[in-house]
Amino acid sequence: MKTPFAQRRRALQAHLAKEKLNYLLVTHPPDWYYLSGFTGESGALLVGRKNTALVTDGRFTVQARDETSGVRIHIQKGTLSEAIGEVLRAASKKSVGFDPVHVSVREFSTLRKAAGAGFQWRPAPGKVIALRMRKDEAELAQMRRAALLAGDVVKGVFGLLKPGIREFEVAAEIEYQMRKRGASGPAFETIVAFGERSALPHARPTAKRLRKNELVVLDLGAILGHYCSDMTRTVYVGRAPERIRRWYGAVLEAQGAAIAAVSNGVTCGDVDNAARQVLAGHRLDQYFVHSTGHGLGLEVHEDPRVARGQKRRLESGNVITIEPGVYVEGVGGIRIEDDVVVHSNRTEILTRVERDFIEL
Amino acid sequence: MKTPFAQRRRALQAHLAKEKLNYLLVTHPPDWYYLSGFTGESGALLVGRKNTALVTDGRFTVQARDETSGVRIHIQKGTLSEAIGEVLRAASKKSVGFDPVHVSVREFSTLRKAAGAGFQWRPAPGKVIALRMRKDEAELAQMRRAALLAGDVVKGVFGLLKPGIREFEVAAEIEYQMRKRGASGPAFETIVAFGERSALPHARPTAKRLRKNELVVLDLGAILGHYCSDMTRTVYVGRAPERIRRWYGAVLEAQGAAIAAVSNGVTCGDVDNAARQVLAGHRLDQYFVHSTGHGLGLEVHEDPRVARGQKRRLESGNVITIEPGVYVEGVGGIRIEDDVVVHSNRTEILTRVERDFIEL
Repeated sequence: MKTPFAQRRRALQAHLAKEKLNYLLVTHPPDWYYLSGFTGESGALLVGRKNTALVTDGRFTVQARDETSGVRIHIQKGTLSEAIGEVLRAASKKSVGFDPVHVSVREFSTLRKAAGAGFQWRPAPGKVIALRMRKDEAELAQMRRAALLAGDVVKGVFGLLKPGIREFEVAAEIEYQMRKRGASGPAFETIVAFGERSALPHARPTAKRLRKNELVVLDLGAILGHYCSDMTRTVYVGRAPERIRRWYGAVLEAQGAAIAAVSNGVTCGDVDNAARQVLAGHRLDQYFVHSTGHGLGLEVHEDPRVARGQKRRLESGNVITIEPGVYVEGVGGIRIEDDVVVHSNRTEILTRVERDFIEL
Repeated sequence: MKTPFAQRRRALQAHLAKEKLNYLLVTHPPDWYYLSGFTGESGALLVGRKNTALVTDGRFTVQARDETSGVRIHIQKGTLSEAIGEVLRAASKKSVGFDPVHVSVREFSTLRKAAGAGFQWRPAPGKVIALRMRKDEAELAQMRRAALLAGDVVKGVFGLLKPGIREFEVAAEIEYQMRKRGASGPAFETIVAFGERSALPHARPTAKRLRKNELVVLDLGAILGHYCSDMTRTVYVGRAPERIRRWYGAVLEAQGAAIAAVSNGVTCGDVDNAARQVLAGHRLDQYFVHSTGHGLGLEVHEDPRVARGQKRRLESGNVITIEPGVYVEGVGGIRIEDDVVVHSNRTEILTRVERDFIEL
C-alpha cells in the first residue's frame, strides 16, 4: 500500500474549512493512524487547515519520526491533554472541533484549562470515521487478504474438533495460526464455544472439553496490515438432531436474505430487517438477541452499524459484517458471519468458507 | 478464588455514604468486573447505598445472570447511556458520582438528558481503582500464577532465538505458549524487537529476521484468571560488544536500585528516582525515555504510576512493575522488567527469570 495519509488529511482539511473549524483534535487511535500512519499507543493529532501536529510521549519519539511524514511532532512533558493545550496556546486561530465520543469529561476539562481562554471548543463527532467508512482500493485489497487469512484458519481448525479438546486449546491454535500467517494478532478475543455455551453470543473460551453431539461456534478475526476481518462458523460434532438442522437452515436463510439486501443506497436498518423477517417467519426472532452486523476496517466494530431502525444508507466502499444468529439458553447457539463489501453496482463477499451445515 | 464481589461492593458503599453520594456509576470494564464478576464487553454498574444494578445489552443477558449475584440486571433497548438514565429516572435519590476519566463528553451529555432534571452529577474519579490497588491474598495468589506463567514462556522462548527467525514468529510462539498454559490471552501486544528495532520501547513485531550480533527485547505478559503479568528480558545473540555489556549492567543496577527502594510508605516518585539516579551516574539517563513502572492487576497499566515526581505512597497490596531501560537510536535498546508486590514489611518479586546478562 502506498502511504495515502497526506491525501486523507487534505480531504479532512477541506471539510474543516467548510465547517469553519481551525483545528480538529483527533484522539481516537484508529483515526490518527488513518491520517498519519502513527501506530504508537498514546497520542493525539491536531489537524489544522494547513498543518498537522502529532503529540505523543517520549516512548514514541523515534517511532513517530519513522512512521509519519509532513507532520510536526511534539513530545509531551506532562499529560497528553496538557501538551495539546500547550500546542494550541501557541496558535492564533481559535475554533477547535473534537469528537465527544472519544474525549473523556476529564480530558475535556484539562484541555480547556491548558489551552487557556478564547478557544471555541465545538463537538464534531465522527469526522474521521466518515472518511474511513469509504475504503479505497488499497484498503479493500488489504481487507481481502485479512478475510482470506481468517478463512484459512477456520478451515484448518475444523480438523481439531475432536471430543476431548478444550475450548481454550482451540482458541490458542486459532490465534497461533493467524500469527504464523502474518497477522499482527486477533482482531478481538477469539470465541470458541462448545455445547450449551454456544448460546452465549460472546462466550470467552474456557477449559470445557468438547463432547460428541455438541454445537461448536468459532468466531474469529485477524488483524493484517492494520485491517480487521471477522467471521463465524457453527458446526456440529456428531449427527445433529432435526431441531438443530432446522435452526441452522433458518440462520443461513436469514444471512442470505441480509446479504441479498445489501446494496449501494439501502439503509442499514433494511438490511437488519431482512435477516429479522426470515427468523420471524421461522418463529426464531426472539432468539436473535443482537444486531445483524457492523462496519469493519481499522476497527473490528465501527460505523456503519447494521441494526434495527438504522437510517444510514450504505455506500460504495463500506465493509460490513452480516451475522445473524439464534441463541437458545440451555441448548446452544448458531451464528454465521461473513464480511461484505458494498460496491456501486454489486456486493462482494470477502470471507470464503463453505456455509452449508457441517457435521464432523 | 471465592467470589469477593459483594464484599467489595460493601466497601464501596461505605465510601459512598461518607461522600454523601447516593450512587456511583461504574463505567470502566475492569472496575465493574471487580465489583460484580461480570465479564461482558459492554455495560455499566450503578452502585447504590444498598443495591446495585447492572445495565448491559441482549448479547449478555444469560452471561450477566450466570456471572453475577446480588445484582439487578437491566437489559438496554437503546444506547447504554439512555438505559442508565432510565434506571436513574426511576430512583428517588439524586446524587450520582461518576468517573470523569471513564465517561466521554458524549456519554455524559446523553446520561444527563436521559436521567432528567434534578440529578446532581458529581465527578468522583478513581474510587474503584483505589480499592483495586490494594490486592487481597487471593488476588496476589492469582498474580503469582500469571507471573510464573509469563516467566515459563520467556524461558521456553530463548531456545528459538536463532538467526533467521522473524520477530512475529517469536511473538506467535509466545502467545501460543501462554494460551497452552491456560492464559486467556496476552495482557498486551507482545513486543519482540531485534537489533536496532529494540531502540523502540513499544516496537510491534515485524517480519524482520534475527541476525547474529543483535539485541533481542522480549516484553510480554499473560492474563490468567483475569489478572495480568508483565515482564521484559533483553538478551544478546552472539558475543556482545563491551558497550552493550556496560549498558546492560547499568540498566540492571538501576532496576536493582528501584526494587530496593520499593517499600510500604515510600513515594512512587522516589522509586522512579532511584532508577534514574543510577542511570545518571552512568550518563545514560537521557536514554531512559519513559517512567520506571506502573501498577498491575486487572489491567496491565493501572495506578499507581511509578513516575517522576509522583507523590503517591506505596501501600501493602500494591503490585507494580519496575522496568528501567536505555534506548539508543540506531544501535538498540535494553529493558529489564519485573513485577513486584509491596508487603507491609517486605518486597516480593513475582517474576522469576534470571536477570544476569545472557548471550545466546
